[in-house]
Order: sequence, then C-alpha cells, then structure tokens
Amino acid sequence: MRYELYYWPMIQGRGEYVRLALEEAGTSYRDVAREEGIGAMTAVLEGASDTPPFAPPFLKAGRRIIGQTANILLFLGSRHGLAPKAEAGQSWVHQLQLTVTDFVVEIHDTHHPLGPTLYYEDQRAAAKKRTAEFWSERVPKFLGYFEQILAKSGGAYVTGRRLTYVDLSLFQIVAGLRYAFPRRMAAFEPDIPGLVALHDRVAIRPNVAAYLQSERRIPFNEDGIFRRYKALDV
Amino acid sequence: MRYELYYWPMIQGRGEYVRLALEEAGTSYRDVAREEGIGAMTAVLEGASDTPPFAPPFLKAGRRIIGQTANILLFLGSRHGLAPKAEAGQSWVHQLQLTVTDFVVEIHDTHHPLGPTLYYEDQRAAAKKRTAEFWSERVPKFLGYFEQILAKSGGAYVTGRRLTYVDLSLFQIVAGLRYAFPRRMAAFEPDIPGLVALHDRVAIRPNVAAYLQSERRIPFNEDGIFRRYKALDV
Repeated sequence: MRYELYYWPMIQGRGEYVRLALEEAGTSYRDVAREEGIGAMTAVLEGASDTPPFAPPFLKAGRRIIGQTANILLFLGSRHGLAPKAEAGQSWVHQLQLTVTDFVVEIHDTHHPLGPTLYYEDQRAAAKKRTAEFWSERVPKFLGYFEQILAKSGGAYVTGRRLTYVDLSLFQIVAGLRYAFPRRMAAFEPDIPGLVALHDRVAIRPNVAAYLQSERRIPFNEDGIFRRYKALDV
Repeated sequence: MRYELYYWPMIQGRGEYVRLALEEAGTSYRDVAREEGIGAMTAVLEGASDTPPFAPPFLKAGRRIIGQTANILLFLGSRHGLAPKAEAGQSWVHQLQLTVTDFVVEIHDTHHPLGPTLYYEDQRAAAKKRTAEFWSERVPKFLGYFEQILAKSGGAYVTGRRLTYVDLSLFQIVAGLRYAFPRRMAAFEPDIPGLVALHDRVAIRPNVAAYLQSERRIPFNEDGIFRRYKALDV
C-alpha cells in the first residue's frame, strides 16, 4: 500500500514530523498537495467522508483517513518499526510525542501570540514579550525534560537502543530552533548536550540524510512553525 | 485495580476530561492530590521513574504511569467501553480528542496570550485582542467542525448510538464556554444546536449527573482553563 500524505506544500510545518517518519521508514508515499496542488487537499477536507479531519496533516492509508500529527505517528510507528512493540511502550512514545505537540504550539505562538489568523506584522510587540518568556521559562522546561528522559534511557535514543518517531521529532525541534533563533539557541545548547548529540545522530541516518539533501525536504521559511525574525532573536 | 488520578486539586483544568471518563465508567479511582495534597503529585513528577510525565494530569494504573490527557483517555476508553472496539474507531475518537486538546489550548490562551507563566493581570490588553479573534474565527471553526461531525454520525453521540469519551469532553467544552463567556456563548449557541443537545444528553446520564452534584466536581473558577473575566465577555 502506498500512503498519501496531505499537507500544505510550501512549508515543513506539522507535516514534517510525518514526512520524517515516512522517510526514515523507507515506505512509499505521495506528498499529494506538492504533486497536485492544494485543491486535492481541500477536496478531502470538504468532502463527503464521515470522518473528515479538522486540518492538515492527514494520511490516507487505503480507505482510512487519519488526522492529527501525533495520531498519524501512532499509526505509522507500530507498522514500520518506529515504536516499541509492547502497548505500554507505544503509549509512552505517544505520550512523549504529545508533549512535543504541546511544545510546537508554544513555538508557533512566539510569533502568533494573538492568534493564528492575524499576521505577525500585526502582533510584533506581543510576539516580543511572548518570545522572551518562551526562552526564559518554556524552552528550559520542555527541552530540560527531554534531556532528562534521554539520559534516563541509557541509550542513543529516547527509549534506549532503537530509534522511534519521537527521536525524529526531537531532531526537527533542534533543527527548527537553530533556524528560527540562531543566537538564542547557540547560547542554550550547552544545557542540552544529549539532545544536540541526538540531533546529529538522527541527521546522519542514511534515509534521513538522503531526505534532507533531496528536494522533498522543503527549506525552513517564514510561513512555517519555525520563523526567523531578527527582532525575536536577541 | 483502583486507578490513581493525579491533578491539581483546586481546578477542573485538563484533569476534568479524565475525571468525567472515570465517573461515567463508574470505575474506582482516587483523586490523589485532592486527598493528600500536591506533595503527593510532585513526588511522582520529580521521582525516580524512568517514564516521568511532563505535567499533570497523569494516571497510575497498577505499575504504569500514563500522562497526557488524550493519551489517558485512549487508555481508559478501550478498557471501559468509552470508545469503539475496532482499532479504526479508536483512532478516530482519539483524533477527535486531540482536536479538543487543540481547542483547549486556544481557550486557555484567551486569557494567557503572552504565555502561561505571566499573570492575566499582566496581559489584559493582549487577552482582549486574542479573545476577539477567538470568538470571531476559532470558535466557529472548532465548534462548527464538531457540530458537523455530530450531524454526520446520525446518532445521539459523536460516533453514533454509543457514548464515547469525546462526548464527555464536548459536554465539558460547552459547559466551560457557558461559564467563562455567558454573553458570547448565549449569542453563539443557536449555531450549534446539536452540541447543545449533546451537552444536555450527557448531563443527565446517571453517573455524570451524580458526579456533577457531588463534591468531587470542583466548581469552575478563575484559576482553571475556563475563566470568567467580564472584560473578555463583551
């Protein structure tokens, strides 16, 4: 079965966590809106399905349509060796992914504190305040947590010796924070040596490395979650 | 097995979605921090477990510790008849719960747009702007979506004839918005007749009704997710 991923074609965004999992698994998939345009995606969102997703990304797997990033990863993880086999292990990795999800919302809110439908340019002052708090309070809390989990695992990856999809997601978090906040992140990285090493370990896995060098990897840009605004990176 | 729920003892918050599921299921549980104080909760958060949760709520089920609200409900749903039996149905209800989770973040952000660690009093102006956008854009989008799903189900509940935990969560959303924004919600309710009827149907289920009248149901208050601030309810 060939998967069909539906996500905004111009950004990494939340779809990137799914793309990374599909690429690492080496499974066959189409990135539909990139091949056919956004119309193919909105047709599904507005279509006659009894179980329409609320928003992209969503994955078509045969006749199933699966929405919500962490839910898609839960589905893919057990089918492609990107999660433990036991239910308790799957639940744990999913729990960590949901914590990544929470963090991604807060990353997005650094440039959109007044809501997702206003432009950044209309909320610059609020964005500055929110970003200051994000770096003083929230980054240490979230990344400190994952650093601790990684240390407890005693292995190269979050659950130990084997990579799971949450390792791919943490790679993306480190890469994204480096892109969006190069100065702040450079100052913070000494506090999270484990996560930095994890990032490097993931980046050189053959399937991930090939993906990152391909045109399938959309460059970071200022329409995505991780945006580089000089005013926010002091 | 008797479950142990750990959550802040003074608020409904995110723990309420778990409390409602435990109560509807009629299962035995202890609300530990309400019985023993917050120390019992922080002891687990800071304890020696290899799989510590990031934040409350979390559930102890025997030797397992399960965190993240939607993940706890995924666990409870399949064990207590609060979710479909087939995997595709479980995934669908979980996906809907994750969309509720997204909405809960945005509800919280109406009074905390500049971040969770500053006081509301320090972000009143930003809260006003965010709340205006919340009601003009986000409430219609989220509640319109759930209204549509409910209509498609053709039954009394979101998946049809049988109640799932996401119905309990939507009850809580309607009740909470009524508490926090009585004027705005009264004006909006004609747009969501299905969700209002769902709220009423859930409220009179025997286990839920008994819970709502008990002291186990903490009243809404201005430390929780749903806060009644006159300035935000114009």
